[in-house]
Amino acid sequence: MICENLSVNEKGHLCIGGRDTVELAEKYGTPLYVFDEDRIRARCRTYQAALHEAFGDKACALYAGKAASFRAMYRIMKDEGMGVDVVSSGEIYTALSAGFPLEKAYFHSNNKTDADIAYAMENGIGYFVVDNREELDAIEAIASEKGIRQKILLRLTPGIDPHTYAAVATGKVDSKFGSAIETGQAEEMTVYAQSLSALDLVGFHCHVGSQVFDSDVFLRAAAIMLNFAAKMKEKYGFVLRELDLGGGYGVRYLDSDPEIDIAENIRTVGAAVVAQCKALGLELPAVRMEPGRSIVADAALTLYTVGTVKRIPGYKNYVSVDGGMTDNPRYALYGSSYTVLLANRANDTGKTFRATVAGRCCESGDLLQENVELPNDTHRGDLLAVLTTGAYNYSMASNYNRIPRPPIVMLRDGEDRLAVRRESFADICRNDL
Amino acid sequence: MICENLSVNEKGHLCIGGRDTVELAEKYGTPLYVFDEDRIRARCRTYQAALHEAFGDKACALYAGKAASFRAMYRIMKDEGMGVDVVSSGEIYTALSAGFPLEKAYFHSNNKTDADIAYAMENGIGYFVVDNREELDAIEAIASEKGIRQKILLRLTPGIDPHTYAAVATGKVDSKFGSAIETGQAEEMTVYAQSLSALDLVGFHCHVGSQVFDSDVFLRAAAIMLNFAAKMKEKYGFVLRELDLGGGYGVRYLDSDPEIDIAENIRTVGAAVVAQCKALGLELPAVRMEPGRSIVADAALTLYTVGTVKRIPGYKNYVSVDGGMTDNPRYALYGSSYTVLLANRANDTGKTFRATVAGRCCESGDLLQENVELPNDTHRGDLLAVLTTGAYNYSMASNYNRIPRPPIVMLRDGEDRLAVRRESFADICRNDL
Repeated sequence: MICENLSVNEKGHLCIGGRDTVELAEKYGTPLYVFDEDRIRARCRTYQAALHEAFGDKACALYAGKAASFRAMYRIMKDEGMGVDVVSSGEIYTALSAGFPLEKAYFHSNNKTDADIAYAMENGIGYFVVDNREELDAIEAIASEKGIRQKILLRLTPGIDPHTYAAVATGKVDSKFGSAIETGQAEEMTVYAQSLSALDLVGFHCHVGSQVFDSDVFLRAAAIMLNFAAKMKEKYGFVLRELDLGGGYGVRYLDSDPEIDIAENIRTVGAAVVAQCKALGLELPAVRMEPGRSIVADAALTLYTVGTVKRIPGYKNYVSVDGGMTDNPRYALYGSSYTVLLANRANDTGKTFRATVAGRCCESGDLLQENVELPNDTHRGDLLAVLTTGAYNYSMASNYNRIPRPPIVMLRDGEDRLAVRRESFADICRNDL
Repeated sequence: MICENLSVNEKGHLCIGGRDTVELAEKYGTPLYVFDEDRIRARCRTYQAALHEAFGDKACALYAGKAASFRAMYRIMKDEGMGVDVVSSGEIYTALSAGFPLEKAYFHSNNKTDADIAYAMENGIGYFVVDNREELDAIEAIASEKGIRQKILLRLTPGIDPHTYAAVATGKVDSKFGSAIETGQAEEMTVYAQSLSALDLVGFHCHVGSQVFDSDVFLRAAAIMLNFAAKMKEKYGFVLRELDLGGGYGVRYLDSDPEIDIAENIRTVGAAVVAQCKALGLELPAVRMEPGRSIVADAALTLYTVGTVKRIPGYKNYVSVDGGMTDNPRYALYGSSYTVLLANRANDTGKTFRATVAGRCCESGDLLQENVELPNDTHRGDLLAVLTTGAYNYSMASNYNRIPRPPIVMLRDGEDRLAVRRESFADICRNDL
């Protein structure tokens, strides 16, 4: 099993967090997202403990809510003492309505509207992570108007290509995000931000990509950022109080994906950062990381009921399920890999049926995975599980084909509870006039 | 301009259906979908008139609602005497709640659940377009139980690759849709369907793809289907009463896309079908086509407000807007082409600024279009229009990053009205517990 919270019970049913997925599907229906809250909390603690050990008590992990944003997640983050990375007024609204303390929130995004900026400030956002010059001006203007001094970080692009998929590679100079160190724009932004009286520039942020397996990526990014900070100190007397390294470590979608020792990796980055700060004569800043996928992805799976099983002799086989790109668009978008198995026959060894798992949308590209090995007698009514679906599944889900979004069930201490209700047809039509 | 309903007024503002887009953006905010209802209705009439002329009064166009499914669209289709193609219980619910007569609805999908089948039947669905054997059994069982005789068509794959993009190519043998003529499965399905007493097999359906520019594709598909029908008549006495050719003609996203004369194309297909029926000794069946994109795509555009304009010397330029893949995921999914211009300066001839138009999601892949030519002084506050967004934009929209979906404004006879309200943050959190 690709994650330690998965097992198979004596009935041959797949279990997550010790709970039988067949029973959960019967209770809540399919498609169904199942999240193991114990696993989510354990991951938060791993990051927090490792960051504190490596960088001291001022360090903090920020949960990148875009991976999975709904009220229950912000309650967990509050409990666990995590900060959060928010990217829109909608995420701020969700965090607020869950009682999350917004002073621990960092507002990202390449394009914050004036309305977003005002909304965030009125609700006491902790930090803006400022992407660009227009935004500096807009935040300065709105903060001045409100008579407050707003803490900000600047989002910089260190010029690193982490060799992950293009859509999640954000540290390169050619990016819609941030200001590049290489082109001199980062320096201009630093000087300009310091000149604005309503802004308190506390530090820098970079994000070199998502799903990072190579700890060298964070090491290189940190080195570039610290060298830049030392230069800013020397030239302009700038004091780096916070360094946000963005991102988190990779998770396993397939058996062939490596297993990352998060604590060990953070320790390595910590040792390098501490040594470099010393060498550069910088005080160790408060370090942040922003794991999203890494916190939530392998804590969850999606359950579907098999409908059509189509054998096209000489061509291909298709297994269609009652969900698809509407609840998980990642294969359609990126060709993402997933581990797929029959949850009601998880021990079945006769996997001689190679099939494409298709969704129910009226679109040929609505596939969940190709070349999956399933039992030869896979049939209507079987329960199919797609693993590692906690990140960017519910959050990216749509109502394409007017298909309601599935509910989210949370498991904690062996108990299940609904965290997000199944959408109704009335919900989908609610704004139709 | 790529569509005749677009123009530029004396202020240099882009107009759609004669209405100033700058005024509409001021009234309703951005992002905003604007649909020209007059254009939608004109397109319905073009299809209906051409089908009647080519195939007689029994012919009918079915609006493929998945392109844009909300109540107002079904009211228009009812008014215009169109049938509809529905693909889910959610679409059926929407059509019903708009007062659409469900006996003119054809229920598609590669994977109908038992619940879907029961729901459709209880609400008096006209036809099931049956994809596969399991579905035949399920519909037979549920119809028997309810004591009704259900009209069905069989979805067949004629084995044509229309050379459109893979995700919209559905007529090939290797498809999640339908039963292939080539493999003998279509014949088996025909024989089996006729043996089921609760089913009334009225005809066949095929869908060779979306965005078809080459009328030869429909000609070849029709020829294969009629030859198959003749064979079924000869071997089993099957009488073809309905022939559904699926799909619709291509629309223009770019100036370089050809303009299709829909009426002329249908006339050509009509002449061939009539001649072939005569040659094969078949009575002319009631012909259906299923335009979706072709009805609605170029009747609409999306308006955005420009936020960040980023110039990265030696690399690329980015213009970020207040929407993106959340309201239009087609560039992220397929790399789809769109025509983009500044709506508030539509006459600007100094287009020397080559830029990537990016969305506001925290995702590098959130782009709307690359290599767009815009005025050199494009800046925060400009109004940007993406044309031909009526199909598969609102219908595929998501709340990724917790971004609310934009409203839809309809224009008719020079008047504007809201057809779908802007989503609120409370809407997004409505099902969160």
